This record gives sequence, C-alpha cells and structure tokens, in this order.
Amino acid sequence: MTYCVGIKVGAGLVFASDSRTNAGVDHVGTYSKMHIFERAGERLFVVLSAGNLATSQAVINALRREFNDPTAAGLHQVRDVFEAADHLGSLSYRIQQEHADALARSGVSAEASFIIGGEVGTTGHDVCLVYPQGNYIAATPETPYLQIGETKYGKPILDRIIATDTSLDDAARCALVSLDSTIRANISVGPPLDLALCEVATRQVARRLTLAADSPLYVGIQQGWNEGLKRAFLALPRFDWEQNPG
Amino acid sequence: MTYCVGIKVGAGLVFASDSRTNAGVDHVGTYSKMHIFERAGERLFVVLSAGNLATSQAVINALRREFNDPTAAGLHQVRDVFEAADHLGSLSYRIQQEHADALARSGVSAEASFIIGGEVGTTGHDVCLVYPQGNYIAATPETPYLQIGETKYGKPILDRIIATDTSLDDAARCALVSLDSTIRANISVGPPLDLALCEVATRQVARRLTLAADSPLYVGIQQGWNEGLKRAFLALPRFDWEQNPG
Repeated sequence: MTYCVGIKVGAGLVFASDSRTNAGVDHVGTYSKMHIFERAGERLFVVLSAGNLATSQAVINALRREFNDPTAAGLHQVRDVFEAADHLGSLSYRIQQEHADALARSGVSAEASFIIGGEVGTTGHDVCLVYPQGNYIAATPETPYLQIGETKYGKPILDRIIATDTSLDDAARCALVSLDSTIRANISVGPPLDLALCEVATRQVARRLTLAADSPLYVGIQQGWNEGLKRAFLALPRFDWEQNPG
Repeated sequence: MTYCVGIKVGAGLVFASDSRTNAGVDHVGTYSKMHIFERAGERLFVVLSAGNLATSQAVINALRREFNDPTAAGLHQVRDVFEAADHLGSLSYRIQQEHADALARSGVSAEASFIIGGEVGTTGHDVCLVYPQGNYIAATPETPYLQIGETKYGKPILDRIIATDTSLDDAARCALVSLDSTIRANISVGPPLDLALCEVATRQVARRLTLAADSPLYVGIQQGWNEGLKRAFLALPRFDWEQNPG
C-alpha cells in the first residue's frame, strides 16, 4: 500500500508521501513516491504515486524522458496543472493497458493513481488526483486536499485542520500527523516520509524534507501528538454517573 | 454501512454502535444494531450487527425465538461466550445461504458480521467478532477491542487509549470518540448512538445509553474532542525554519 496527500491552501501547496511498497508481505521495499519536475521559475510539478509500482515507475520514467526532450509532448509544454493531469492520466492509462492482460492472468492489477500539483506561469497553483482510468479531479476551497492509497486513517485530522487560510507550515505539519496516523494503523505504509512545500507564485519547491523514522522532528511530532491526544481525551466531559457516583 | 465496537477491559465490557442503515443513498434508515439477551444474574449477551439488514434481523429474530424456548438450542444454554459466538456464526451462515443465490443474482451480498460479548456464570467476560462465514475471533489483552462495519476512521483513537487497565467509563468515552470520528468521515454511519457498559462478574448491563445527535453529552464530547485536537495540533513541534525564520 501507500499513502500520499496533496494539499492546496491560499499560501501554496503541500505534498507528503510515505516510502513503503509491498507485493505480499514478503516483498516489502522502500521507494520514494515523490517526483519533482521543475523549470526554474517557469513551471513546477510535484507528482505522487500509488498502486502498481511497475506502472508508476514506467509513468514517471516516461514523464522524465519527455520533460528532457523539447520535441516531445509533455509536462514542459502543458499550459496549466489541469492539462498536466490530463496528460499524466492518458500516459498512465496507456501504460496500464500494455500489461493489463498479462497481469490480470496472474491476478494482479496494473492500476496506479497519482497526485499531480504545481504551477505553470501565472495560471495559478493547483493539485489534482488522477484516477487509474486517466480522468482527474482537482482540489477546491471546499475540498482542499486529495489523498491516494490508504486514505482513511489519516483523513479525520485533515478534515479538522485544513482550510484555505491554513498556513503552509501548518498544512505540512498536518500532513505529517495524517501520515503518522496511517503508519500506526497500517503496516503497509512506512517511513521515510517525503515532504515538499511550494509557495504560491514562486513555481519552485520552497522546502523539501525526507524524514527517517528516527528523525528528531518526526519523533517529536509523534510524541507530541500522542500526548496531546491523551490530554484531549482526559479533558472530555464525564458521564452523569461519574459526576454523581452511586 | 455501520460502525460497531466491542471492548474488553479488566473491569468489564463496553459495546457501542451507530444506527444508520442504507441500501444505496436513497434508502437510508435508522435501526438500532444493539441487541441484549439477559437472564438476570445468570447470563448476559450483547450482540452488535453489521452488513445485510435482512440477514442480521433474521439472525436476531431467530436468537430471540430460541432464547424464549427452553426446548430449543440457543444462547440460553451455551456454556460460555465462545460457544455463543459459534452458535451465532452457524445460525448466521445458514440464514445467509437461504437467500445468497437470489441476492447474488441482484448483485447484493447476504453477508453480515456480528460482535457478541457477555458472560455466562463464572466463565469470565469475553467479546468475539463473528465473521460472515460463521467463524469467530475473540478479544485478548493484546487486542482488547473488535470492530465491524466501517472500522478504519475510528481505529486510531482506540489504539492509543484502550488497554486492559482502562476503566470502563474511559473505554466507553473512547468508544464514543471512535464513533464520532467515523460519523464525521462517513455519511453512511450516523446517530443515535447505542452504548452499553457491563461490569465484570455481574452478568448485567450496568449502564445503557442511547445518544441522539443533539444530546448534551454527545455534543459535549464532539466539541471537547474537536477543541482538544486543535490544541494538540497547535502544540506540536515547529519546523526548523519556523524557529529561525529567514
């Protein structure tokens, strides 16, 4: 499994992902799922991937090849993030089809999902979720974050914290809490954690972190969150019978 | 969907369930999923149900019919909670089979899952999860709670709070927080909430609550938890660049 989240706030974009891959419990590996495509100051894309690792690697490799070939269509010439999502979706669907029949005979899915976000020129910052079928949805002020992979455990804290006026740093911290909740609950999601913060209108990654399981910041957030939750729990209202025993 | 949780601590058992049922988004109903079978001081069972409503109603009706018939096999004569789980599992599997083919032709699953817990004589208090296939697993000191239905959103708080030495009241409060997190995240889970607390060695329900969406206790727990989480979030460690701006 995998867990990735992309967040759009007024101040910019946050991307976060785990690094665990597995094909059954005895094929567990570590791969970064965060891929950055940047033309200094002109355009920026951050891509997160979940699903079949061969599919997602093939898609990223093709995107990278195109990006360095001025004669090819690709992320270097799309006009905005929505066109980028559309391009990524077509590519992903075509690559899945190449191996889908062979994989289906082995009972394996070729499907992969992606989050792609960034900014092209002055068209604004956006983030999209690209489905395995190639279509996409974008984050909006009402739904300012998008998730792929094992999405449920980490959703409640995003729902409570993330809004359009959340600061970029708070959104990044919330993404780490969301990842931590998922890692605690699902053994197929694990560190190191990749984190990227992109300030609006800069078309570059302002901050980029890779946090190992024992990194002081990640350990501090884990401990702080655990203690904070326990304090919050102890402060909850009592039942009537606890106030008036007997 | 549905969300039910059964918790075993040293002090006794806690059961909690939501009341929403749905078959598609335009067939939404309200049914209690908590069913109590009691022989004053001699035996007690609390049953929670998830899955196909016709299956779970048929199972509960059959259990109730048996329970009131001294000549029938049933919960009134099993020797412990594990035998009760086994009996419930056989009954559930048989009832599912009666309609499985007809339902499969309509693309509907007959499956239902149950939590059954309680105490028979002096055999100890236990709680089991009964799978649709009829087999079961029991809660243990290492895994002191069992969930059925939409289990993921409400799992993180149970993992952080519930242990064998948790008080019955804290376990019940934690079950309400777990239900609230699920209700916030999944529209197919909803109030009123049923809650039962059973003290060890009493073989009776010590406390029984049904909380509507606007009940002061539930509203207080919702608000307290939301505010506590936000405080916990604000107290988390900062990134290096926040401490040393620039």
